[in-house]
Amino acid sequence: MMPKIKIGIIGLGTIGSGVVKILETNRDVIKKRLGAEIEVVKIADLDITTDRGMKVDQSILTTNALELVNDSEIDIIVELIGGYEPARTLILESINNGKHVITANKALLAKHGDEVFPAANHKQLSIGFEASVGGAIPIIRSIKESFVANKINNIEGIVNGTANYILSKMSDEHCSFDLALQEAQEKGFAEADPTFDIEGIDSAHKIAILTRLAYGTPINFDDINIQGISGITSDDIECAREFGYRIKLLAISKFNGESVDIRVHPAMIPQSHPMANVNGVFNAVRLCDDLMEENVLVGHGAGSLPTGSAVVADIVQIARDILSGSKNRVSSQSFQNNEMKSIPIMNIKEIHSEYFLRFSVLDNAGVLSRISGILGSYSIGILSVIQKGRNHQGKGVPLIMMTHRSNEKDIQSALREIDGLDVTCEKSNFIRVEK
Amino acid sequence: MMPKIKIGIIGLGTIGSGVVKILETNRDVIKKRLGAEIEVVKIADLDITTDRGMKVDQSILTTNALELVNDSEIDIIVELIGGYEPARTLILESINNGKHVITANKALLAKHGDEVFPAANHKQLSIGFEASVGGAIPIIRSIKESFVANKINNIEGIVNGTANYILSKMSDEHCSFDLALQEAQEKGFAEADPTFDIEGIDSAHKIAILTRLAYGTPINFDDINIQGISGITSDDIECAREFGYRIKLLAISKFNGESVDIRVHPAMIPQSHPMANVNGVFNAVRLCDDLMEENVLVGHGAGSLPTGSAVVADIVQIARDILSGSKNRVSSQSFQNNEMKSIPIMNIKEIHSEYFLRFSVLDNAGVLSRISGILGSYSIGILSVIQKGRNHQGKGVPLIMMTHRSNEKDIQSALREIDGLDVTCEKSNFIRVEK
Repeated sequence: MMPKIKIGIIGLGTIGSGVVKILETNRDVIKKRLGAEIEVVKIADLDITTDRGMKVDQSILTTNALELVNDSEIDIIVELIGGYEPARTLILESINNGKHVITANKALLAKHGDEVFPAANHKQLSIGFEASVGGAIPIIRSIKESFVANKINNIEGIVNGTANYILSKMSDEHCSFDLALQEAQEKGFAEADPTFDIEGIDSAHKIAILTRLAYGTPINFDDINIQGISGITSDDIECAREFGYRIKLLAISKFNGESVDIRVHPAMIPQSHPMANVNGVFNAVRLCDDLMEENVLVGHGAGSLPTGSAVVADIVQIARDILSGSKNRVSSQSFQNNEMKSIPIMNIKEIHSEYFLRFSVLDNAGVLSRISGILGSYSIGILSVIQKGRNHQGKGVPLIMMTHRSNEKDIQSALREIDGLDVTCEKSNFIRVEK
Repeated sequence: MMPKIKIGIIGLGTIGSGVVKILETNRDVIKKRLGAEIEVVKIADLDITTDRGMKVDQSILTTNALELVNDSEIDIIVELIGGYEPARTLILESINNGKHVITANKALLAKHGDEVFPAANHKQLSIGFEASVGGAIPIIRSIKESFVANKINNIEGIVNGTANYILSKMSDEHCSFDLALQEAQEKGFAEADPTFDIEGIDSAHKIAILTRLAYGTPINFDDINIQGISGITSDDIECAREFGYRIKLLAISKFNGESVDIRVHPAMIPQSHPMANVNGVFNAVRLCDDLMEENVLVGHGAGSLPTGSAVVADIVQIARDILSGSKNRVSSQSFQNNEMKSIPIMNIKEIHSEYFLRFSVLDNAGVLSRISGILGSYSIGILSVIQKGRNHQGKGVPLIMMTHRSNEKDIQSALREIDGLDVTCEKSNFIRVEK
């Protein structure tokens, strides 16, 4: 008789429904590959009456998640409710009860990874979290298994579909941030409260997880420098295009052997960059290391079925471990527990980058000279300048510059000084350039 | 004491040296992630005197590969000599002796997979072959483990770096095929006899392997329709660009539920295609399925360290199985042995595609009408036409057309008929368009 792996699903929202649908619709192919059946023993959700467009046996539904956590029949708990609590408690209790856990909960792993991962390792249980970063993109498994011999030193990710959709739309249709956000909300690509997505917090959760896996370090989430896209204007996007660049919300993590430069912010990337054409709700992650130069993975970053398929892949992964008698096959956090070592986070002021600068200045003789003089006094070299339009009513005109590689601290000091000039009409703005 | 996994390496060429270097240089990170050491117990090569720029303990070198195959101390045999024999015999003997096998030998797996995979499965041993397709790109593991619940229905790959280098060079520098090939050879990107690479045979080996894994079918290699890039001219590339396309050597495998459309040929892809900017020696594979729309993986397709890193990932994978007590965790061919089912290969004449057609015709009144008349009689709709230059010396001028979606058999018949016209000066040419 074909063996059965028994799972319980907590949370029947977008991803949870996707998982249930996939296990039903693709039962056949899963069986042919795994050589076993996956059986959903119980599903918990606060709302068990809404029709989710699929057949679910009513008798396996419950509003009490603890029923699953304490069900001795269940091998794997799939946590898809998100947020810190009760997710954290349910996961820790499940581990305590000897169950493997699968979760798409990036917020929880980013903040409480130091608690959850060792707990699972200690019990020789697995935590599957492929769905927590990049939806259908197999980035977690690739770091843990495929690039296991590689000294990764650079991760760049477009890991938030909402922000990418908004930036793509602003770029394609020359519309404002507000209009693009509104349409994203109407189409269901942005939540009613889009703060986590557009302010870069969701991306920061994800880069914290990837950083842990790639470099073997815990990350104090609050130390990550985060800047969202709400300050990006369609003028910025147009100027970027004129210079041959696109603006993307990037999650970045670089390791120089001593400290980790981890940050989330809008960045200009050249049109020839392998992620420059990753648009709309697509996500991408680019990894560099000592052996393979670069590897780029592109795919759907969200959605019921793409993300659901990553969850089911984790279910099959753990099922294979159970069926083959494997214990502790791969450390959940990629490095062995006792090899995790805290690496300091670099202060953003220490980084070096090229910069796109946008000033709003009076169109007077000598303004360019004063501004470039201040930049020069901080050793900031100017690569190119565009001055746009002319205005004789004493209002500001845009002055755009691209700099040579400079130090962030110098840039910030120079901008502060320039913002104090009597010819400066608005607060100056900068966007980092990533090549 | 830290456990040790003992391996033997057969073949100390480009990839073999890469593997030895990685195991030495990155010993530390491998140990931290695996929790064990990888020890190279023996290395076999016909040439054990050439200096390969690294320290190798002379006492572990041998010219006799059978010494490794029969060494009871060795857990994993890494076969990196390529070709059919003696690689096939050495692999089968290793399996017979209870050893796991890792190989980068795509030719062998494409032709003799039906022998090698079941032999390993039967003995509950693993065959690792991540390095056989796409170098550092984790495509094998992704199909076997990450997209395990997905009904894959489309694979498109740029999987030969030599051909891609030549096409990229022809495109960037408007040079001829011969010149680009010559430079590829000078730079070491093409072999002295480049037939396998430029005539698509290497790409066909790779798509045969991916097809087996994705659809669970054996593939009779000789049934694959293969066309190389030696017929591509810089004019073709220029015309493609004018229409907004790039020309790539694609390995294609589509499954409609009944038959597999598997082929290798130069194809025109739109500039917005996610693989249009995959240039030079980079490789890419795009997968589509019922759940995730598309996933694209891009990376170095060849080279000592990138491909070596894929081999070491397989070593670590098998080491993890050994250390965790896992047997038969993942079927080598992705589907369970008894679920492999032969799917018929579609005849190329049955496929439908858009086509780029290039005629060389006399610049006479009525020529366009005769040619489009013939195309029309085969129900081939014309999307756009470019006629280039004028020539009054009775020589041919190029006439370029893009068609609507048409049937290959009709295209071939129409071209045959057109080639018989008295206004046709040279054999007509076509390139399939993939969107």
